[in-house]
Formats: sequence, C-alpha cells, structure tokens
Amino acid sequence: MKVAKFGGSSLSNATQIKKVASIVQNDKNIKTIVVSAPGKRHDDDVKVTDMLIALHASKISGLDTEDALSEILKRYESIIDELAVDRSLLDDFENILRSYLTTIEDDEELLDALKSRGEDFNARLISSYFNSLGVNAKYVSPEEAGIKVTNTPANARLIPGSYENISKLKDYPEDVLVIPGFYGIADNGNIVTFARGGSDITGAIIARGIRAELYENYTDESHIYAAHPGIIDNPYKIEEITYREMRELAYAGFGIFHDEALEPLYQEKIPVMIRDTNAPHIEGTKIVPERDLDPDIPVIGFSCDEGFTSISLHKYLLNKEVGFTRRILQILEDYQISYEHMPSGIDDISIIMRSNQFDNNDSLEKIIDEIDIQLEPEWIEVEEDLSMLFIVGLGMARQVGIVSRVTAALAKEQVNIRMMNQGSTEYSMMFAIKTKDHEPAIKALFKEFF
Amino acid sequence: MKVAKFGGSSLSNATQIKKVASIVQNDKNIKTIVVSAPGKRHDDDVKVTDMLIALHASKISGLDTEDALSEILKRYESIIDELAVDRSLLDDFENILRSYLTTIEDDEELLDALKSRGEDFNARLISSYFNSLGVNAKYVSPEEAGIKVTNTPANARLIPGSYENISKLKDYPEDVLVIPGFYGIADNGNIVTFARGGSDITGAIIARGIRAELYENYTDESHIYAAHPGIIDNPYKIEEITYREMRELAYAGFGIFHDEALEPLYQEKIPVMIRDTNAPHIEGTKIVPERDLDPDIPVIGFSCDEGFTSISLHKYLLNKEVGFTRRILQILEDYQISYEHMPSGIDDISIIMRSNQFDNNDSLEKIIDEIDIQLEPEWIEVEEDLSMLFIVGLGMARQVGIVSRVTAALAKEQVNIRMMNQGSTEYSMMFAIKTKDHEPAIKALFKEFF
Repeated sequence: MKVAKFGGSSLSNATQIKKVASIVQNDKNIKTIVVSAPGKRHDDDVKVTDMLIALHASKISGLDTEDALSEILKRYESIIDELAVDRSLLDDFENILRSYLTTIEDDEELLDALKSRGEDFNARLISSYFNSLGVNAKYVSPEEAGIKVTNTPANARLIPGSYENISKLKDYPEDVLVIPGFYGIADNGNIVTFARGGSDITGAIIARGIRAELYENYTDESHIYAAHPGIIDNPYKIEEITYREMRELAYAGFGIFHDEALEPLYQEKIPVMIRDTNAPHIEGTKIVPERDLDPDIPVIGFSCDEGFTSISLHKYLLNKEVGFTRRILQILEDYQISYEHMPSGIDDISIIMRSNQFDNNDSLEKIIDEIDIQLEPEWIEVEEDLSMLFIVGLGMARQVGIVSRVTAALAKEQVNIRMMNQGSTEYSMMFAIKTKDHEPAIKALFKEFF
Repeated sequence: MKVAKFGGSSLSNATQIKKVASIVQNDKNIKTIVVSAPGKRHDDDVKVTDMLIALHASKISGLDTEDALSEILKRYESIIDELAVDRSLLDDFENILRSYLTTIEDDEELLDALKSRGEDFNARLISSYFNSLGVNAKYVSPEEAGIKVTNTPANARLIPGSYENISKLKDYPEDVLVIPGFYGIADNGNIVTFARGGSDITGAIIARGIRAELYENYTDESHIYAAHPGIIDNPYKIEEITYREMRELAYAGFGIFHDEALEPLYQEKIPVMIRDTNAPHIEGTKIVPERDLDPDIPVIGFSCDEGFTSISLHKYLLNKEVGFTRRILQILEDYQISYEHMPSGIDDISIIMRSNQFDNNDSLEKIIDEIDIQLEPEWIEVEEDLSMLFIVGLGMARQVGIVSRVTAALAKEQVNIRMMNQGSTEYSMMFAIKTKDHEPAIKALFKEFF
C-alpha cells in the first residue's frame, strides 16, 4: 500500500489535476493521497496559500476583504469549471471563508484556519473530480483522519498518539482517500498548520500511520541532484540516498523535501520515492534506510545554505571557566535563538545561527550586550553573510583523505574557509564560508568528486 | 629592569645554583629572581616538592614522619654545605616543618604549607649564598611581596589588587630580590599554592607587577620547537613567537612554560625570553605581543596532547530543540566537568573533555545516564584514547590552502581524522585523532611544513 503526496505545482490547475488522476488510476497501490494547495501556474502567478495570507492581512488591517476573497474563489472556479465538477462546492468554499472571517477572533488562529483552506478546498475538489471519473474516492479531513496536533499556531507538532487513529484509514472501503496536507486539529478543535512545506509533513505522518510500503512524493522534479542544478549544469542524479544523507542535504537547502518530514518515515523505515507528476514513468530518487556503498563515489552530494551569522568571542583561558559556554547558550535561549554550530579554538568560541532569527528585532545587539556584561570576553565579533557548506556521503566514513580532497579543491578556487566543524558523524562535514564563495565552492567540489 | 625565573632543574644542586649566581652577577638588569624548589639532579632523583608531598602523606596516614623529614633536610644540607652557607638555616627549616606538622590541622592547608617550603627554603638559601658572594640580595616572602590569593588550596588565584603592592618591589634598595615561586598568601594568612608549574605563575605576576621590560624564564632548554623533540629529531627552533601562538602550543603539551603563566604577561605586553641556565649565552625563543610574519612559514608549530574522551550523541532534529546543548552543558557543570571542544553535525554533537577528570570516580557513567534520561538521544557513544592535534601559526590566517596541506599530509600517513574544529581564530586549527596516530601525524606535518 502506497501513500502519494502531490505538491502545489502538481495541482496548480485542471491540467495538472488530470495528470494526478491518471497517476492514481494507473496505480492501484495508491490508496491514500495527500494534496497541497494549488501552486503557481507560471512564474508570475500567485499561490493560493499566499492569496489566503493576503485575505488575512486585509482582514486584520481593517481593509475591505471582498477583493481578496473573490480572487481566491475565482481561482477555484476556473479549476472546477474545467474539470466539470459540481459548482455547489464554490458556495461551500465561500461560506466557509466568510464564517472564519466573522467568527474567529484571534489573529493567529484566523491565519491558520484561512491558510489551511488552500489544501482543504483542493482535497474536496479533487475527491469530487475523482468520483466524477468513476474512481471511488473520499475526502477525509485531518480531523477525521485523526491528525491531532499541539495548539501552537503556524507550528503544529503531532501528538504521538495520533498514529493509532491514523492507522484506521486502512480500513476505509473506498479505493482512494484524499486528505488535505498542511494542518492538524488541536484538542480544542482549532485548525493548526505545520511550518511551511507542511504538506510533506502530513504525507509522512499518514504514510507512517498506515505503515505504507512506499511513500511517493510528487513534485515537478524526479531526482535529487548531487549539487544544486542552478549552480551546476547537468548535475549528477542521485538514484538512491539514505535518510541520514538526505537529512544533511535537506538541511542546507535542498528544496524538494522538507527536512522535518523525514522524521516520521525514518522512524518506521518507510522508503520514499521522489517523482515528477509531469513524467510519472520515471523512477526517481529513492530515499532508503540503508544503501550499498560504491567506493568510487564516497560523496553523494554537496549543499550550501546562505543566511548565517556568527558571534565569535575571545577570552584568555576561556576553557578553564566551567560553565562559560552554558551561560552563552542560556542567553541565546532567553532570546529564543537556536544555534546551529559552535566551532571553537582554545581561547575562542563562535556561535553560528540562522540570520533570519534577527530579522525583525534587535535581539542580536541585545545578545551581544548581554554576553559582554555577563561573560566579559576580551572581544566579540559578529560576522554576517556566512554560508554553510556541507559535504555529505556515507562512503566518506570508510575513506581517509576526503577532507584533503575537499580542502584542496576549495583552496584552488581561493575559497577561504572561515570555520570548520565535523562531529563524530563521519558522513558529513561542514565549512563556514563567505556567501560570495558559495558558487565557486560548489563548482570546485563538483569538479573534484563527479 | 628584568625579572628572571629559575626552574627546578636550574636549582637542583650547588653546581646549578652557582650558575644562577653567575647569571645574576653578569646581568645588572636582573633585579628580581623567582625560584623553584630543587628539581631532579638525575633521572632517578626525587624532586624536593615530591619529598614534601611524601612527608604530608606520612603525616595524614598516621605514619612516622621522621624519615621523610630527615630526607628533605639532608637534601638542603648537601646544598648548604657545598655552597658554604650558614648552617643555622637548616635549623630554621627543621623548625618550620615541625611547627607546620603540629599546628596545621586541616589536611589540604597542611599540604599547601608543606609544598610551599621547597621554593621558600630555596629562596632563603640562595639569598644567603648571594650575600656570601658579596651580592646585595634579599629574600622577600610572597607575603612581603604582596602576592595575595584566594583561599582555594592547591589552586590559588591572584587577587587583582595585588599588583599595586607588588609594584613597590621596585623601590627596594637591594640589588637582587629573591622570591620563592609557587604560592601566595590568603586573607587569613594561609599559604596557598598555585596549580603545578606554579613558579612560572609567580614569575609572571612579579614581572607584571613591577612592569619588567623582559621576563626571562630559565630552564634547561633555550628554545621552543616547532614540534616535540621526542618525536622529531632536530626540530625547527622557534626564534620568535607571539603569546597567542604560544598559548595554543602550550595548551596541547609544550611543557616549558605553563599556559596560565602567560596571562599576566599578555595583559601588560611584557616579552618573555626562554633561556637555558646551562648555556646562558644563547638567546632563546622570544615570546612577544606581535611578530613579523614570514609568508614561507605560515605554520609555527604543531602540538598534540593525549588523554581526551568524547561523548557523542545523535538525535533527529537536534538543532531545532532550543536549549539542547545548554542542558548537556548544565549536566557537565553539575559534575564539575569542563569541556574543551564541541564539534557538531546536523543531528549530532560531540563533547570533548580531558579524560583525567573521570579518573577517580564514576562521573562519566553518571553523566551518560543523566544525558540519556534528560535529553533522550537516539544514541550516545563514548570514545576514549583521543588526542587533540593543533596546527598553529599566525601566518595561516593570510593563506588559503593550509587546511588542504594539513589534511593531505595526514591522509598520506593514513591518519584518520575523527573530528575537526576551527573557530574564527584563524591561527589555529584542531583535529581529534586516535592516540595511536599521534606520532605519525606530527611526523607527517613536520615533513610537510618544515
């Protein structure tokens, strides 16, 4: 039994939805599908989710909401008409949106409820379309599916007991269940969305709950590449990759698959196949618990993510002060800042954090002041515009000399390694570099290893 | 005005003390000397400090103390007789030791008081000998010199206000002041010793207090080498090195100079010269605030220290848990364990600590249990027998490609890099390796860089 998740680009209009229907009709193993909201139809288009966010913005700023509302309905109307689905759905959609706008008072709760409708309406519509094709399909809401989550707006966490409820989906008599991605239901009945990329999370949760033998993730790409195709022409296509390697690549910006979505699959060792809705005959990259290692390919991929800031501090005999680092981390925690890495020298330590945590506030300055007062370092330095470069591959653990190949390739391109870090996990190593060196670094590594 | 410190090997017997006298007589700039206890005269010999520790051990275990006492006095007697110093000093020494043994009740206080006598008696004796040579010398006790410290047995910390008292030593009319190293006086009058290597600390404190223009550190070596002479034959002699570089090398086991002793000198930018008592005409390695960099010699030295343990833990999405690392460090702090480095991957973190902190207790097991319960990692792994390898050199900061040369040299010798770490300080990088790879690693690096 398979679970298939279809991303926004796979469901952006009637043509795409027809492709999805054909995929589902041709594979009797697909018992459950998880759907995203309609994505962009072309580069200048607007995703339905963003239209719903705009509706929310109009509402809370006291502006007229009619325009935003009608844009959303028009988008669904065009799909409904082209698929010849019952138009009464449109009235349902309008009624639901209007009732949320008038009854939900809390801003954050309203935002989550509105955002969730992109997926929800699409699931209802698709289920209805499938039925019109003679497929015995059923729309199943997250509430009915048993996806119970914490009441933390825009950051839902699954309540572990949910898996037992979800497993009951196996017993449904219908051929295909259509479940909207992106949200769950809190104990008090509130709609709560997952972080962005949240349809992936729903898909993974359902796959785990029903113990699917395969989870298919349909987008507009069939493969994960060894390096970003925007930087490298024709990069190496990865046929098979382990969860652990995927996680390292996903962390640093491989956009196909949301990193948190791997967790439920990883726990149950459910393999994942990346597939392209527009080329469903291609077997794409498969994400598996274990794989055979090819000694000629120790490195499976590189990724590099921009947008990091480091705070470095220096104090003589720093390492003799028991509790020094713990106090720094306490300060970060007080400001709800999470750190990514903490490379250190003998008398210095650097804390690397994602810069976007400082976007809308002055917490960076406050943290610096706080560290200065509490820890009295000799100096503190802040470095922005850092990128984290990851070299990933389970084969690296068995070979001496990979670091040397990596660093030689970087040196040849005059890439200055600002910091480096490698823990006990030998299948990944990290280098902090200046963001301007991002592209040359990836190019140099690709040339060296592929 | 100079301060000179003479180590134990420079004062182990009458012959050595005569060399010291000649050095002081030939350099009118040496106004203050700081002396250690008599060291070993040959490989099988016992240091006076260790004899004093044995005396303490006899006392607290209720054994007869006469033998231990007489061994110590005999050692001084042979020096006194050979230098033809007034034998009444011996009676003073005996009376002091006997009075400590009978009046100091606290074990730790007694140990500190006894240990301090090695330096103290030597200072009295040397001052007396200098006077017999016609040098106008004066024994000055740490109390008189104003070295006030915390009342923390065996781990004295200088009370910062002390420097003002110490500066008054400049006004003494005598030509040479002889100050015992290794201890200071607490507010309540207790004798409190510095950590081992403590004569270095006294020397540095005095040099800073009187703002010496140079601090000479006399041992039986005139130079610091780019690598340990026990591993490399004829290693490169360092002519000039900065405090910062010295600190990195000293940290990982360059024995000549105690790392904590650099701090007071560093604060006042007082240069240090390493000198050999047995070859006083040689100008040895000079430790300075800044130095000119030779682009052909980016690396100044390597050091490698054994005896580290790492705890590595893995947990999916570890970096999303704000406070995860802080909680680990809190556990370490509860057990009074200081950590050295903390390299990390995406879902894993390793904590590297000096193994000797776990020698006499089961805190490692307790810490592991505590981490397991509080943080629920997927797995924890302990690795012992690790060595920390440091590559040091201010010139490294200006050159791209040093990491690559280092890692290539290590790979060629099949040295497996277990972890790596480099903070924002670009003049040092660290690699964790297996202790068995210590010698091959140093040899490979020496060959590459010198």
